[in-house]
Amino acid sequence: MKIFALPGNSMLAHGIVRQLEAEPGYFTVRRFPDGESYVRLHCDVEGQQAVIVSTLFQPDDKILPLYYLTKLLKDSGAQSVTLVAPYLAYMRQDKVFNPGEAVTSDYFAVLLSSFVDRLITIDPHLHRHGSMSELYTIPCKVIHAAPLLSDWIRQNVVSPVIVGPDSESEQWVSEVAQKAGAPFLVLEKVRRGGHDVDVSIPVVEPYASHTPVLVDDIISTAHTMIETVKHLRATGMAPPVCIGVHPVFAGNAFYDLITAGAAEVISCNTIQHPSNRIDVAGILATTISECYQTIIRHDKE
Amino acid sequence: MKIFALPGNSMLAHGIVRQLEAEPGYFTVRRFPDGESYVRLHCDVEGQQAVIVSTLFQPDDKILPLYYLTKLLKDSGAQSVTLVAPYLAYMRQDKVFNPGEAVTSDYFAVLLSSFVDRLITIDPHLHRHGSMSELYTIPCKVIHAAPLLSDWIRQNVVSPVIVGPDSESEQWVSEVAQKAGAPFLVLEKVRRGGHDVDVSIPVVEPYASHTPVLVDDIISTAHTMIETVKHLRATGMAPPVCIGVHPVFAGNAFYDLITAGAAEVISCNTIQHPSNRIDVAGILATTISECYQTIIRHDKE
Repeated sequence: MKIFALPGNSMLAHGIVRQLEAEPGYFTVRRFPDGESYVRLHCDVEGQQAVIVSTLFQPDDKILPLYYLTKLLKDSGAQSVTLVAPYLAYMRQDKVFNPGEAVTSDYFAVLLSSFVDRLITIDPHLHRHGSMSELYTIPCKVIHAAPLLSDWIRQNVVSPVIVGPDSESEQWVSEVAQKAGAPFLVLEKVRRGGHDVDVSIPVVEPYASHTPVLVDDIISTAHTMIETVKHLRATGMAPPVCIGVHPVFAGNAFYDLITAGAAEVISCNTIQHPSNRIDVAGILATTISECYQTIIRHDKE
Repeated sequence: MKIFALPGNSMLAHGIVRQLEAEPGYFTVRRFPDGESYVRLHCDVEGQQAVIVSTLFQPDDKILPLYYLTKLLKDSGAQSVTLVAPYLAYMRQDKVFNPGEAVTSDYFAVLLSSFVDRLITIDPHLHRHGSMSELYTIPCKVIHAAPLLSDWIRQNVVSPVIVGPDSESEQWVSEVAQKAGAPFLVLEKVRRGGHDVDVSIPVVEPYASHTPVLVDDIISTAHTMIETVKHLRATGMAPPVCIGVHPVFAGNAFYDLITAGAAEVISCNTIQHPSNRIDVAGILATTISECYQTIIRHDKE
């Protein structure tokens, strides 16, 4: 098995290679001055399993290099190409909210399924879909980061109370809380007309001496989280710790969260960011190894 | 028929719509703060021919919006989707120059052919391939800009002598020259080892009183053209006029050409650039109308 890291994934891929004792895949990917991508393979993949690590944050200009590398690996004899996308793009436009809208979650899944053989991802934003197989026609393996968040909270936060962003996240938040041995609260979003979103904080008095730990799958604009941090600070609670699985941080979101009064903003390394404190290399390596054994077993039948 | 312009193509699409008396296609395309594309259709395309104008300069981040719009048009009932890409990307890596290289011209053609129904383009860089059908499995219509270049030269340059970049371009250059009623010369590239490329200028004395007009299909880094401008200036000839069909202008190429001593640098509007002087809207409109009639005639059989 060879592990290929597209730009922005080298640290994570290195962690995976080390834990799997797989070989790194050597290749070049760069852009010509006219913006076209160039891809060249520097290793043998004949008959081997190839794994490409490419998180799909800011996905649009990543898709062609990924497509070219996949095609090249297949044409060079790779038995299969697995995409490890710790953060999977285009999961949020999963229905027609306004007439005429492209349901990009469907279209993106069709495209990716057309050239990749298998997909491994972490906590994809499965909102209206029950499972990845409703979108993707290739085998998909979904990894949950909740146990890693629980571990980090247990080891780093004294007397935590977990705070989830909305009722839809309740199951996930309760799982994080349970494994962290902590109580949890879930916010209710209250629309104040137009674009204004207010958050109602449940009764926090019983947790006055706890440290609030705000968790969410994706921190993008962080609007709700910022609002919540301000509310909690106003109640006199300790400065909250904010944890996101996927540190998308659109625009100034990271800075805005810190300046709103968060004690700390931390994330998983599904997207490279200075806030990365929770390493997903281990669970990715384990999952790859499971998939790999599955393939081998299947071949032997 | 409805004509849709992706960002960077509105001027050209407007010219096409006017000459065809087709209707503009109304839609929204934008990026979310996290870099994902959003596409929404604001018009009816049921049973209609849809034409998307999207030049493929700096192609990597254009491919997903183009793919989404195409899928959306088909899902909204468009009878067919034609891509007008005045500049077509990924035509230059058309063979394995060094072991392990991805032949992106093939891979890109497979991808585009998988979702678009028809392709119209201008002077694609068909170097080692005789025709587009060796790469693309969809119907392709190739338009030659040579007559437009000839017209412009005849109307704007006194006593021109056309100068082509290399022997491979001789046929194209001779066509431009003939229609412009001008003599022509073709340069020979001489490699001086490593990356150094020198150009040998044929005997120019007979044309001492002519205005050199340097022509090329793509002006990208402009290395050869800059070198040629300097050589011609050294011979005491008038400052050359430089014409490119596709103004790619990687990095500082445009400025470098001007400062090397070009009298003027002009281009076709296959890519929006201040040097655009030759309008391709007319030949694109004519070609679209021909393809459209073909489809209609075919439907009536």
